[in-house]
Amino acid sequence: MKIDKNTRFLIVGLGLLGGSYAMALKKQGFRVEAVTRSRDSIDYALEQGIIDAGAAFPDPELIGRADVVVLALYPHVLLDWVRENQRYFRPGALITDVTGVKTAVVGPVQAMLRQDVEFVAAHPMAGRETLGVRSADDRIFRGANYIVTPTDKNTPAAVAACEELGRLLGFSSISRLTPEQHDEMIGFVSQLTHCIAVALMTCNDIQHLERYTGDSFRDLTRIAKINDEMWSELFLDNRQALLAQMDQFSAQLHRLRDLLEQQDREGMRDMMRASTARRKALEAQNQKGSDCL
Amino acid sequence: MKIDKNTRFLIVGLGLLGGSYAMALKKQGFRVEAVTRSRDSIDYALEQGIIDAGAAFPDPELIGRADVVVLALYPHVLLDWVRENQRYFRPGALITDVTGVKTAVVGPVQAMLRQDVEFVAAHPMAGRETLGVRSADDRIFRGANYIVTPTDKNTPAAVAACEELGRLLGFSSISRLTPEQHDEMIGFVSQLTHCIAVALMTCNDIQHLERYTGDSFRDLTRIAKINDEMWSELFLDNRQALLAQMDQFSAQLHRLRDLLEQQDREGMRDMMRASTARRKALEAQNQKGSDCL
Repeated sequence: MKIDKNTRFLIVGLGLLGGSYAMALKKQGFRVEAVTRSRDSIDYALEQGIIDAGAAFPDPELIGRADVVVLALYPHVLLDWVRENQRYFRPGALITDVTGVKTAVVGPVQAMLRQDVEFVAAHPMAGRETLGVRSADDRIFRGANYIVTPTDKNTPAAVAACEELGRLLGFSSISRLTPEQHDEMIGFVSQLTHCIAVALMTCNDIQHLERYTGDSFRDLTRIAKINDEMWSELFLDNRQALLAQMDQFSAQLHRLRDLLEQQDREGMRDMMRASTARRKALEAQNQKGSDCL
Repeated sequence: MKIDKNTRFLIVGLGLLGGSYAMALKKQGFRVEAVTRSRDSIDYALEQGIIDAGAAFPDPELIGRADVVVLALYPHVLLDWVRENQRYFRPGALITDVTGVKTAVVGPVQAMLRQDVEFVAAHPMAGRETLGVRSADDRIFRGANYIVTPTDKNTPAAVAACEELGRLLGFSSISRLTPEQHDEMIGFVSQLTHCIAVALMTCNDIQHLERYTGDSFRDLTRIAKINDEMWSELFLDNRQALLAQMDQFSAQLHRLRDLLEQQDREGMRDMMRASTARRKALEAQNQKGSDCL
């Protein structure tokens, strides 16, 4: 289980992420094939040279010749797809995914999976506010983070191959977390932020809001334009971790609120100084990360 | 009280905003002078050709020859400055400001001001995370909003001149609100967003956070690097309005939290759809605004 120049990739689900994976892998010279529900997406990807072959159904031949299968599907679709189509996997194949939640996916997939193939989950932390293969763009991976979430069912070789995939795609940082650590982390840095943006965008209804907004409001609500089908599913699949993060954030916001109510200026400034220091550290680390490339 | 090519401007406080005003007005061909506490800022601004003359103290001669005085000071400094130096204002002068809160400033200034000059408050909604005249850049006004907050003490001519100043600086949208409406609005679009960013940045302490963040976390915490001296003062000067906004946001976030806890997927999706529609409307209006320039 090692990626070399003869490795054949199969993308399952040709949306924004699946299409961007295909694009990046094709540029690296790999053979990339795809199966997805929409014939139109396959036709478009073939026209654009993003894939070498494809089918608008789970074609046993395409599935059977892939060395690496990337499942770029919604969580519940992913589970159904594996259940129905794993019989076609080539023995020794590496299966990976792009899902934004891990405990809800990794356990069930590894529990049902054939013993002669291996599933190593990964989360490419890149995206856009637009959908579909027509929005695919492998530049979204540059400067971005890629998290692999191995379990004790995985072999070192398969985990290494999954990490190598992240590098081939162009990610700037490759990390490992357990599925549980991942979900706690993602509940914080990704799901909580989307909850905040949605709440902020809907807590007031103001006529001609565009006349009064500055960069801060625009930045904090960019992700308030949200794919409700996907995110509601991701939230539910990570419910306990996300609830804990929402409560932790709410408590901290309430702390700041109480300091303001009590006119405790030094208390507010302490919190702002802590915030400034952490944000600066984040920037410094990001900078360092980029310099290492 | 009309701005024409002979109008002389005086900037009081040569920081990021005062410096950017000076830069924009110089490019429009006006004579621009400045008084500020720091000799170094004056020297830098003279070297860079951002001002024509300046002094590191409230020079009576400079103050006395200005037709338009822009007070680019912190709120409490502004009140003291006007109290001590208004005797030098030229009769008929237009006084304006750049302060981010209005009720705490407009009433007190108009109550103490000489009858032969006029104060029309304005809020240029532009800024940066960096401080001082060395960060000045008049491009921050492009695409940005400028809000004038007249009261019944103001004359139509002075309000029109203050709006004309916004246009000369290069703002894309000029609006009018009462000081109270302004403070409610700013509590929402600007102060609440800063509170959220600070609470988000400080509610978890994570090692190597930079390996796990995506664009959403970076966008929502950009303003978590915050000038604690200025913002704590602005928060306190707008305490009631900001507390109301924090409570309204917290209630909405809690609504989303409860929907998640109850696994009410349709309820969550409804909120996300409302959020998406409002954010799209905001973008469409911004677009329209830009096209009008």
